[in-house]
Amino acid sequence: MSDKEVYYSDYLQLDTILNAQRLESVKAGIKADDEMLFIIIHQTYELWFKQILFEVDIVKNIFSQQGINDNSPDLQISVHRLKRVVTILKVLVHQIDVLETMTPLDFLDFRNLLRPASGFQSIQFKILEAALGLKYDQRHGQQYYVSALHKEDIDKVKSAESKKSLCELVNTWLERMPFFDNALFWKNYSSSAKEKTTAHIFWNDYRNQYGNSLLDAEKDNLSHFDTLFLNEKDYPAQRQFSQKANRSALFIMLYRDYPMLQQPFQLLNTLLDIDESLNLWRYRHMNMVHRMIGTRIGTGGSSGKDYLTATIGKHSIFKELAELTSYLIDRHHLPKLSAELEHSLGYTKI
Amino acid sequence: MSDKEVYYSDYLQLDTILNAQRLESVKAGIKADDEMLFIIIHQTYELWFKQILFEVDIVKNIFSQQGINDNSPDLQISVHRLKRVVTILKVLVHQIDVLETMTPLDFLDFRNLLRPASGFQSIQFKILEAALGLKYDQRHGQQYYVSALHKEDIDKVKSAESKKSLCELVNTWLERMPFFDNALFWKNYSSSAKEKTTAHIFWNDYRNQYGNSLLDAEKDNLSHFDTLFLNEKDYPAQRQFSQKANRSALFIMLYRDYPMLQQPFQLLNTLLDIDESLNLWRYRHMNMVHRMIGTRIGTGGSSGKDYLTATIGKHSIFKELAELTSYLIDRHHLPKLSAELEHSLGYTKI
Amino acid sequence: MSDKEVYYSDYLQLDTILNAQRLESVKAGIKADDEMLFIIIHQTYELWFKQILFEVDIVKNIFSQQGINDNSPDLQISVHRLKRVVTILKVLVHQIDVLETMTPLDFLDFRNLLRPASGFQSIQFKILEAALGLKYDQRHGQQYYVSALHKEDIDKVKSAESKKSLCELVNTWLERMPFFDNALFWKNYSSSAKEKTTAHIFWNDYRNQYGNSLLDAEKDNLSHFDTLFLNEKDYPAQRQFSQKANRSALFIMLYRDYPMLQQPFQLLNTLLDIDESLNLWRYRHMNMVHRMIGTRIGTGGSSGKDYLTATIGKHSIFKELAELTSYLIDRHHLPKLSAELEHSLGYTKI
Amino acid sequence: MSDKEVYYSDYLQLDTILNAQRLESVKAGIKADDEMLFIIIHQTYELWFKQILFEVDIVKNIFSQQGINDNSPDLQISVHRLKRVVTILKVLVHQIDVLETMTPLDFLDFRNLLRPASGFQSIQFKILEAALGLKYDQRHGQQYYVSALHKEDIDKVKSAESKKSLCELVNTWLERMPFFDNALFWKNYSSSAKEKTTAHIFWNDYRNQYGNSLLDAEKDNLSHFDTLFLNEKDYPAQRQFSQKANRSALFIMLYRDYPMLQQPFQLLNTLLDIDESLNLWRYRHMNMVHRMIGTRIGTGGSSGKDYLTATIGKHSIFKELAELTSYLIDRHHLPKLSAELEHSLGYTKI
Repeated sequence: MSDKEVYYSDYLQLDTILNAQRLESVKAGIKADDEMLFIIIHQTYELWFKQILFEVDIVKNIFSQQGINDNSPDLQISVHRLKRVVTILKVLVHQIDVLETMTPLDFLDFRNLLRPASGFQSIQFKILEAALGLKYDQRHGQQYYVSALHKEDIDKVKSAESKKSLCELVNTWLERMPFFDNALFWKNYSSSAKEKTTAHIFWNDYRNQYGNSLLDAEKDNLSHFDTLFLNEKDYPAQRQFSQKANRSALFIMLYRDYPMLQQPFQLLNTLLDIDESLNLWRYRHMNMVHRMIGTRIGTGGSSGKDYLTATIGKHSIFKELAELTSYLIDRHHLPKLSAELEHSLGYTKI
Repeated sequence: MSDKEVYYSDYLQLDTILNAQRLESVKAGIKADDEMLFIIIHQTYELWFKQILFEVDIVKNIFSQQGINDNSPDLQISVHRLKRVVTILKVLVHQIDVLETMTPLDFLDFRNLLRPASGFQSIQFKILEAALGLKYDQRHGQQYYVSALHKEDIDKVKSAESKKSLCELVNTWLERMPFFDNALFWKNYSSSAKEKTTAHIFWNDYRNQYGNSLLDAEKDNLSHFDTLFLNEKDYPAQRQFSQKANRSALFIMLYRDYPMLQQPFQLLNTLLDIDESLNLWRYRHMNMVHRMIGTRIGTGGSSGKDYLTATIGKHSIFKELAELTSYLIDRHHLPKLSAELEHSLGYTKI
Repeated sequence: MSDKEVYYSDYLQLDTILNAQRLESVKAGIKADDEMLFIIIHQTYELWFKQILFEVDIVKNIFSQQGINDNSPDLQISVHRLKRVVTILKVLVHQIDVLETMTPLDFLDFRNLLRPASGFQSIQFKILEAALGLKYDQRHGQQYYVSALHKEDIDKVKSAESKKSLCELVNTWLERMPFFDNALFWKNYSSSAKEKTTAHIFWNDYRNQYGNSLLDAEKDNLSHFDTLFLNEKDYPAQRQFSQKANRSALFIMLYRDYPMLQQPFQLLNTLLDIDESLNLWRYRHMNMVHRMIGTRIGTGGSSGKDYLTATIGKHSIFKELAELTSYLIDRHHLPKLSAELEHSLGYTKI
Repeated sequence: MSDKEVYYSDYLQLDTILNAQRLESVKAGIKADDEMLFIIIHQTYELWFKQILFEVDIVKNIFSQQGINDNSPDLQISVHRLKRVVTILKVLVHQIDVLETMTPLDFLDFRNLLRPASGFQSIQFKILEAALGLKYDQRHGQQYYVSALHKEDIDKVKSAESKKSLCELVNTWLERMPFFDNALFWKNYSSSAKEKTTAHIFWNDYRNQYGNSLLDAEKDNLSHFDTLFLNEKDYPAQRQFSQKANRSALFIMLYRDYPMLQQPFQLLNTLLDIDESLNLWRYRHMNMVHRMIGTRIGTGGSSGKDYLTATIGKHSIFKELAELTSYLIDRHHLPKLSAELEHSLGYTKI
């Protein structure tokens, strides 16, 4: 066999990978057969985190371009890669089944040997949260974060936090949507609304339809609608998506049936899938920790269960997109677009 | 073909089953293609609930016997059937993937036609919760419960609540465990504890070992231990499991390696799996509802999301068993049983 | 509560659905607790088959139109619905886990009571196979098919077979792809091939590139290529897809990165997913049957295992599409399209 | 932080693990973003193979003891660990979903760079097959096996093949079952059979019952029964399990309801689950390869699809155990055991 031919175990560096398990229980001379599982499952988690970060970086690079060309494959590649992230996250959730085959008593065999290490110290996971859009201010357990990580690891996370996140890049991309700034598209649009606001003619119409769709007990939603989509000065500064981006995102959700909005709709939907899958992972992880150690203190020195519970809601990156669902109306009441606009949302006529 | 031969579609009553989908959107003359999916998925859920109730009833009947004979297959049949319930619940969780293929806009096509019906009105699910051990007092949303259900359905749930629940039956079964009442078993047991309490010699030992295992920040756990396992007069009246049952359950978890405790351990573990699977179903269901309707009001007139969130913790039936994990110690420090006891936890010598 | 209000159990006809389980073992006075599971799981299968047929019919209706308008949501609705079918099929595969909780001995309790009924008699499944594209000639076990089914059920399957199948409709849709008939698109296309054939300039180029990509041991593939894509008179009459359709399908796979080919690519890919999921269901089903009854004869009178094994390959509807993979080349060697063609494969410039 | 404290990334050797991905496409200066996924997924597979081998080795060590003490936790630990193997294998099957997100065209970007490496070269997988019980003679593709692997890797597999396999150890364990050699147990057993053979009184009875249970078309099964369980001289030499082991295994399956046979039954059942999961992995893997490269030649120089297809049946380790299902009869017709035997299959009376 020639030296240059690729050989499976060399290509995958199996000598390295398969010799990277050193058990604390072996060092301590204690029999704890399940520590091997504990190490290997965490190593597979970290390998998958590397892959997820690799995919997210590709997508971030695409969205960092000056303007995404709708006729390039950029958007569909982004959707494809983010869907792959969701597929991987489903495997990660599934893996918890394997960890659950370790019973509390089995874990007690070596648990104390691991202190103060903790899954909380996974830097890649923190970098992933930052790359998607989580800011330091929004993090749960900041205290611990500073005290329990090595300096160089804190720096890595800070560095990730300092770059534009996928969330910010998507916001910029949403804002650039040109329809509402282009009077041409709307010249033949026929408004149905009697009440007028200062909003763009389309949003004035939509606001009326939305108001009509509300049950009595939901009437408050209309003022939320105004805050989120129309009234510029009331818009809360701390939100991740701008008012302009909100309008684009809602428009995409409503008119996704037009060819040009299909991929954008898939993109938004897949971001929600990522949040949902991450939260499902946190949720099942939390249950597993609870079942494993109950109210005892985790190896990292704090209650793992409380940390994970807190992050489920708090660390949802795209929750503002998820909330837009509250402002949808049914298809029969959607304002009808003008022929010009319909044309520009379609494929070139052949 | 003879009339008496079994024919697949007759056997399964497919004429009946496959003609039991009447769409409100068809009645209303509205095109809403996803309503078929909505009906069929709920029908499959209800069929599976029937099966789960069927299995739980068999197990309840076994545990309703005067005394379970350890040498009969009763216990292993119970474990087998409860494990099947867990397998079914995993399919039910998986089915949410199908419902998630219905987008919010698709649901809006027919959502208003369903008012005020709601998944909350599933009587079988409420009966299942009651059969497992949920009491009316512990229910979230009691108000709605009374106002939104038909009289005969409320009666069905009340009737289920009035019977001995699986939780109560398991409590009785756990209490009957004879070891600690039988001095014979303990005559050659050698205690290692210096400090003495009024507790049984074994529990006195175990308490000491447990105390030694606690980190400084966990020292409070010792008084919880005393409350749960030792001090009869402080024991909170509202708990589902008695102090005696707690002791048996903990003993089973600690000494499950003895043959006779294997099936009991599997039983307790499977009850926790059922709780976990039900909660996972509630959790994913809740997310799906949130993603489908956001902060809008559900067809049942209340926020489906809030209801489901509340029930995840509150409706955990076996949470007291789950908490016992906090009181485990590692195998190396377990009190050593006497030869007499070891013998009676094993198989007959052949 | 008003009479007109929708009530959950009425809406889902639960009185009907939940009372449609009659056990043969109860009739025979034999205790066989697992027969309930057997009935209920088959009923859920049939409910899901109904849903799958419902979705496939919608897609077939779309493809039965004179010409699908690329600027309508037709194609993306089709892809969406077929993807849902795949999601449902995954649940059906998962359900086999539940059936596997029934051990061979449990099944023996009531197996003989069911003769000669058999899962083979599921008419909906046969209709589904026919609706997708399976012809009577291609069916395995035709003999049994005629002898074991009721006359009206045979008629239902025949009727499904007599209609245009999804496979045929997709073939027609693929054939209509206009690029190669329109000289205009190719006037500025610059050919790289030296060798010429009578084929269209693009296919002549592609054939050369494909030939170059073949390893020595694969050289035969080139004549297969000619048969499948170029030589009209050699084309085997019994194939489901025409030569013209083959060319369109391969072109879609190769140039799927252009916006207009994204949905067509998704469509073809999803058809392969459906075949794969159906086969996985057959495969796991076959294993389960084998594990349940070994080499004993099934309730339908023949070896269920052999039937299922045979159908895995033979009943793959879209296998001709799957084979196209053999004729792909890597992106770097793809013939470059002309600007005219690129334009017409993109969105309208805004 | 003290030097001795355990730190997550050190403990898991993440510096090593996460820097062990070197892409051939990067070396070659070719853009092929999916090669990272290709490497990482294979690395996770190999990590999991290591864990599976670790578990199987523990079980093999247990079964290598002179005699397993039924009153030790040996058997339940074995069952627990083998069930974990099944849980892991389900994750490995699930991971194919991730690989399927790589389309044929994406794979073509770097496929040729990998020649002649191939998944076939996974030594750990071959060692696993050998550890479970696959012999060199039974291997498909022996030729390739010799030509494509490095000498030291062939040696590793040979070494694994030369040790007692789990299959052989289980055979020995099954043979040791003492019931039929101990006349004492059978003295009060009342035989129901009129026809007599030279077989043990129990097997004579069982043979009669089995014969009665056969349909006309199944009558051949009786002579198979005789070969497998009764006639010593006809017994085929090449079988993995001995006739004595067959009898024990069938007895366990039939009388698993007795406490002492529960864990043995679980053990046999879990071995079948392992075969089934390995085959499912091979099956889905094969489909994935077929969809990825069609009839093209794999990077290893042969048709990956054909290899995998062949191994599904041929490499089933425990197929002889699976076949025992054909010789079960229903519970109502089981010979009734004597009181002595019932007693020795139960727990000690307390």
